[in-house]
Amino acid sequence: MRATTIHAPFDMRVEEVPDPRIQRPTDAVLRVLRACVCGSDLWAYRGESAREPGQRIGHEFLGVVEETGDEVVGIERGDLVVAPFMWSDGVCDYCADGLTTSCEHGGFWGSGGSDGGQGEAVRVPFADATLVKLPADAASDDRLLSALLTLSDVMGTGHHAAIGAGVGKGTTVAVVGDGAVGLCGVLAAHRLGAERIIALGRHQARTDLALRFGATDVVAERGEAAEAAVRELTKGQGAHAVIEAVGTEQSMRTAVNITRDGGAIGFVGVPHGSGTGIDLGVMFNRNIALRGGVAPVRTYIPQLLPDVLDGTIDPSPVFDLTVGLDGVPDGYRAMDERTALKVLVTP
Amino acid sequence: MRATTIHAPFDMRVEEVPDPRIQRPTDAVLRVLRACVCGSDLWAYRGESAREPGQRIGHEFLGVVEETGDEVVGIERGDLVVAPFMWSDGVCDYCADGLTTSCEHGGFWGSGGSDGGQGEAVRVPFADATLVKLPADAASDDRLLSALLTLSDVMGTGHHAAIGAGVGKGTTVAVVGDGAVGLCGVLAAHRLGAERIIALGRHQARTDLALRFGATDVVAERGEAAEAAVRELTKGQGAHAVIEAVGTEQSMRTAVNITRDGGAIGFVGVPHGSGTGIDLGVMFNRNIALRGGVAPVRTYIPQLLPDVLDGTIDPSPVFDLTVGLDGVPDGYRAMDERTALKVLVTP
Repeated sequence: MRATTIHAPFDMRVEEVPDPRIQRPTDAVLRVLRACVCGSDLWAYRGESAREPGQRIGHEFLGVVEETGDEVVGIERGDLVVAPFMWSDGVCDYCADGLTTSCEHGGFWGSGGSDGGQGEAVRVPFADATLVKLPADAASDDRLLSALLTLSDVMGTGHHAAIGAGVGKGTTVAVVGDGAVGLCGVLAAHRLGAERIIALGRHQARTDLALRFGATDVVAERGEAAEAAVRELTKGQGAHAVIEAVGTEQSMRTAVNITRDGGAIGFVGVPHGSGTGIDLGVMFNRNIALRGGVAPVRTYIPQLLPDVLDGTIDPSPVFDLTVGLDGVPDGYRAMDERTALKVLVTP
Repeated sequence: MRATTIHAPFDMRVEEVPDPRIQRPTDAVLRVLRACVCGSDLWAYRGESAREPGQRIGHEFLGVVEETGDEVVGIERGDLVVAPFMWSDGVCDYCADGLTTSCEHGGFWGSGGSDGGQGEAVRVPFADATLVKLPADAASDDRLLSALLTLSDVMGTGHHAAIGAGVGKGTTVAVVGDGAVGLCGVLAAHRLGAERIIALGRHQARTDLALRFGATDVVAERGEAAEAAVRELTKGQGAHAVIEAVGTEQSMRTAVNITRDGGAIGFVGVPHGSGTGIDLGVMFNRNIALRGGVAPVRTYIPQLLPDVLDGTIDPSPVFDLTVGLDGVPDGYRAMDERTALKVLVTP
């Protein structure tokens, strides 16, 4: 089959790789219908996260089950399924707690020896626990397929950030980061009943989407000017719940400074310097909590799925560029240059 | 009157200062019956927190109301009352939320121009909101008075740490710090239904007290050996809830490394380098939350008071040395040299 590989920073290729096959009785093989490129893939693309030359990549995908191992009972050939961005065994202590990202036998698509999502097919370990079945008729609905694909990562991650930040009915929320995760954070906060949602961002296409997703205010300033603008919107106090969806020192510093005393930051931006942006003295004096991390989206898919299916939430507009498998390298370039928000891949 | 003042690092004096008097109609003047020395006072004592020469000190006290301003309605001359370690107005947005430490008109005893608790009397701003009435007959019960005094800080702070760490029924808790706050954290965790409480500490008098307060295990090792010991006690996973009651880089690093994936650190040690002990990458990968800060003990006093009055919890054993007002400098020395755990002052 053909799949995307990364050979060096900025060197993405689409090439022939071995066909996936059942290796363990709990495996399934899935034909990818839709995949996409994640903002976090850009850390590898830019060389800021190390990869072995030729390693697979892509951790967001949905598709049709092609083959199952002997012990797979909940899923069969022909099922339409979505995969979370990590696989998990479903039975360890952490999976029992819903923290599937800490699964004792879990792993990340594209890590050494495993398939990535940006390819024609994927071998899925622990298929019963990892995959979630979708209604078969969704396969013929392009918009719905795109919306469902976001459950593999960005929608669940935005939801995790909102939960971590303590979003609830009547809260004021601020969202740092106008990428797909930040925008899904807006959507998640709206779904959870936030009264006011302040989106920080300077790219109008993105902030327009934030408004469409439920943001009530947009702050286009950056740094201290952004902090002042958020305070002005919040009686000088800041937001109860702040979503940090970038992961840099500056984004975390902004997040700390715009959180209301007693509030919380839900952080889901993969840390790339953001630890330095934490002023623990400020957080101590103001009782600001920090919660989040890698999102256990497998646990969230069943919670969010009904709302995606009935249209209560529609994250599909985060995709603004569609490419075939051969177009994946162009897709990375477009996201790296921020000419695309999020790239859909139709292998 | 006579009160404790700090003139330079290690230079504590007890000297004549102006008698406190009602300055605003919401003030009260309180005659101090019991005060004490806090571990956090040692930061000033050692010169690690700056103080003006001659500044008052002491933020934990209870006593009898001597005089009230015209607008004070809930408290009258002769009432036995306990003060939390900060005053608060009781009406601002933060006080309404219970976050009295962020009160818009709040302040800290001993800060410039205010009285400190380690003296004969104190002017109390916003007396109705700040002070909490105690049963009059407690004044004749030495043990109970000591137990009630801990509500001014250490017991409420230990409770705040336990709440921040997410202690609940059946949880496994680890406590970093064997000072009075850490020990009160053990007591708070026990009160909140923790199943297992691991106290980290090397001083047997303190760990014995931890066991008396409800600890089920003691880890005497430090650093990586302590982390390994906690993991051994917890199926290799760490504790659901970790109380960080020190505030140094090492204590925070230990706290992060002994927290179970998906767990939380309740941090109440005043940060003195602890920010550097936070590895955000680890916290991200393992979904470890950080919650805490300066404890809104005013909110906790009414919650904890019934349990202290009926003996459900008895934090009084944290005091292991009693001095008169003239003995306060000796008390600081004893705590600095760790020959005393916590010093009670009877002015």
